[in-house]
Amino acid sequence: MRVRTSADPAAGPTLAQIGENALVEMLTRGLPRDARVRVAAGDDCAVIGAPRDTRWQLLKTDAVIEGVHFLPDENPRRIGWKALCRAISDIAAMGGIPHYALITIAVGSGVKIARIRSLYAGLLRAADAFGVSIVGGETARSPGSLFLNIALTGSVERTRCVLRSGGRPGDVLLVTGRLGGSIKAKHLDFTPRLAEARWLVENFKPTAMMDLSDGLAADLPRLAAASRCGFTLDKERIPRTRGIAIERALTDGEDYELLIAVPANRLASLQAAWPQSFPRLPLTQIGSLNSQPSTLIPLRGFDHFT
Amino acid sequence: MRVRTSADPAAGPTLAQIGENALVEMLTRGLPRDARVRVAAGDDCAVIGAPRDTRWQLLKTDAVIEGVHFLPDENPRRIGWKALCRAISDIAAMGGIPHYALITIAVGSGVKIARIRSLYAGLLRAADAFGVSIVGGETARSPGSLFLNIALTGSVERTRCVLRSGGRPGDVLLVTGRLGGSIKAKHLDFTPRLAEARWLVENFKPTAMMDLSDGLAADLPRLAAASRCGFTLDKERIPRTRGIAIERALTDGEDYELLIAVPANRLASLQAAWPQSFPRLPLTQIGSLNSQPSTLIPLRGFDHFT
Repeated sequence: MRVRTSADPAAGPTLAQIGENALVEMLTRGLPRDARVRVAAGDDCAVIGAPRDTRWQLLKTDAVIEGVHFLPDENPRRIGWKALCRAISDIAAMGGIPHYALITIAVGSGVKIARIRSLYAGLLRAADAFGVSIVGGETARSPGSLFLNIALTGSVERTRCVLRSGGRPGDVLLVTGRLGGSIKAKHLDFTPRLAEARWLVENFKPTAMMDLSDGLAADLPRLAAASRCGFTLDKERIPRTRGIAIERALTDGEDYELLIAVPANRLASLQAAWPQSFPRLPLTQIGSLNSQPSTLIPLRGFDHFT
Repeated sequence: MRVRTSADPAAGPTLAQIGENALVEMLTRGLPRDARVRVAAGDDCAVIGAPRDTRWQLLKTDAVIEGVHFLPDENPRRIGWKALCRAISDIAAMGGIPHYALITIAVGSGVKIARIRSLYAGLLRAADAFGVSIVGGETARSPGSLFLNIALTGSVERTRCVLRSGGRPGDVLLVTGRLGGSIKAKHLDFTPRLAEARWLVENFKPTAMMDLSDGLAADLPRLAAASRCGFTLDKERIPRTRGIAIERALTDGEDYELLIAVPANRLASLQAAWPQSFPRLPLTQIGSLNSQPSTLIPLRGFDHFT
């Protein structure tokens, strides 16, 4: 099946009108794929492998753009760190470990070399911290903003791979850390929850998991919809960054925390074991999945185009 | 080893002053890598695999940018085709076959959906034509130009993998097709030499190979340097696009033809067999590698920043 093309590309709605969810859904519907594609669009990563392979491959691409994800005068080391850690966070959200990264940088020809070196220093610090090998770099000229794209591979044991779509009615929903207010600083310095996600898949096999990048109000409905479930959310319980109101905790985005679904009968042992391994990071029950997929959430998270 | 960062990012040379070759060399020198990285930066693709694996993995990332690689009013289908075919051409240049692609599109929020659909139609046509599965798409907002990044995986039998660095003194140099003048139209509609490259590695095992993207004058010295060889080039023999002068055939860039080194004793049988398989595509001997690595070429190819 092919994506149909309008005879007049000037016609029709704009991205701001349709929004990102609808766009991604439209573009990726019916893409031809080979038999080894387990998951394509719609999850944190693509998943490749034969049904009985012991390990599956994870593939992720992600970009940060000057004027959208960071300001022009931002420290380039922090931009490099953020760019690679965003992709690592998506590998973590599948229960996987990251392996190889390819970097595309597009910059104006007047950009100082020292700025690019500093960007790479941030990339390398993140690569070092999380066991990633940077195996290629493309440079291109940009007519305007600095553009930095990360392509990252990873892998996960087949039996430990966690999708967004595995949640079941009755599963308990939890989040790591505290939500909201990331724009102040955390969005440039966050730690992807790689160790926590690996610990979870090795010890408590979540039924569904994702990383929170667009805000709980946008991301939780995605996980629930992928799992064909509805959800209840206990707003009073949502762990908030100090000084952040509940609306912002729901919608600010760029939390890079984990949203996790586990069967209710594993909750008590998970809550007992977690603080032994991660004493400084809260793990909070915020709601549960149910069998009414039509649940609506009254607040919207971040949409990249509206 | 780390890339050192200047204390003052405003100091030092610009990209236009240092040029792309020096930049990529500087950024990728001394990157930490795991033991499965066979080739990182410096070839058409990164190559991953254990020394005795029967197949090695190939990884490539590449971007096309509005105002740099195409004009704002260009047909989006042709842009999509070109973007994916550029990456396929790099997989082909290693002797490999392409597998899975991830697409990053950054566009202004006012861009019409029909334009993005048309871009995807071009991507899908190329994916169909060369056996690629598109397994993920990220969308982001761009403050300016349309930016399209392709991350592509592939694989190659270990014994058939061809690097830039395997050329030896005495090897004959050949190119496919005709060079120069791509900007008129071909750069948007070219056919990556996937079938030709596979035929070559299956039947004549080149010692070195690459695809010509920045012009023979820039790319041949790269292949020779990677092989620690010098070269002689017979300018009279260089196959030129009709109406294109020799200088432009050397420097225009975006030819997306193959540059191939083969041992001299295989030349006669290669030249006899080629027209049987590819009657419409010339294969031309243009020179040879030698043992004087200091050879200088008088003309410069395309540098992305100067």
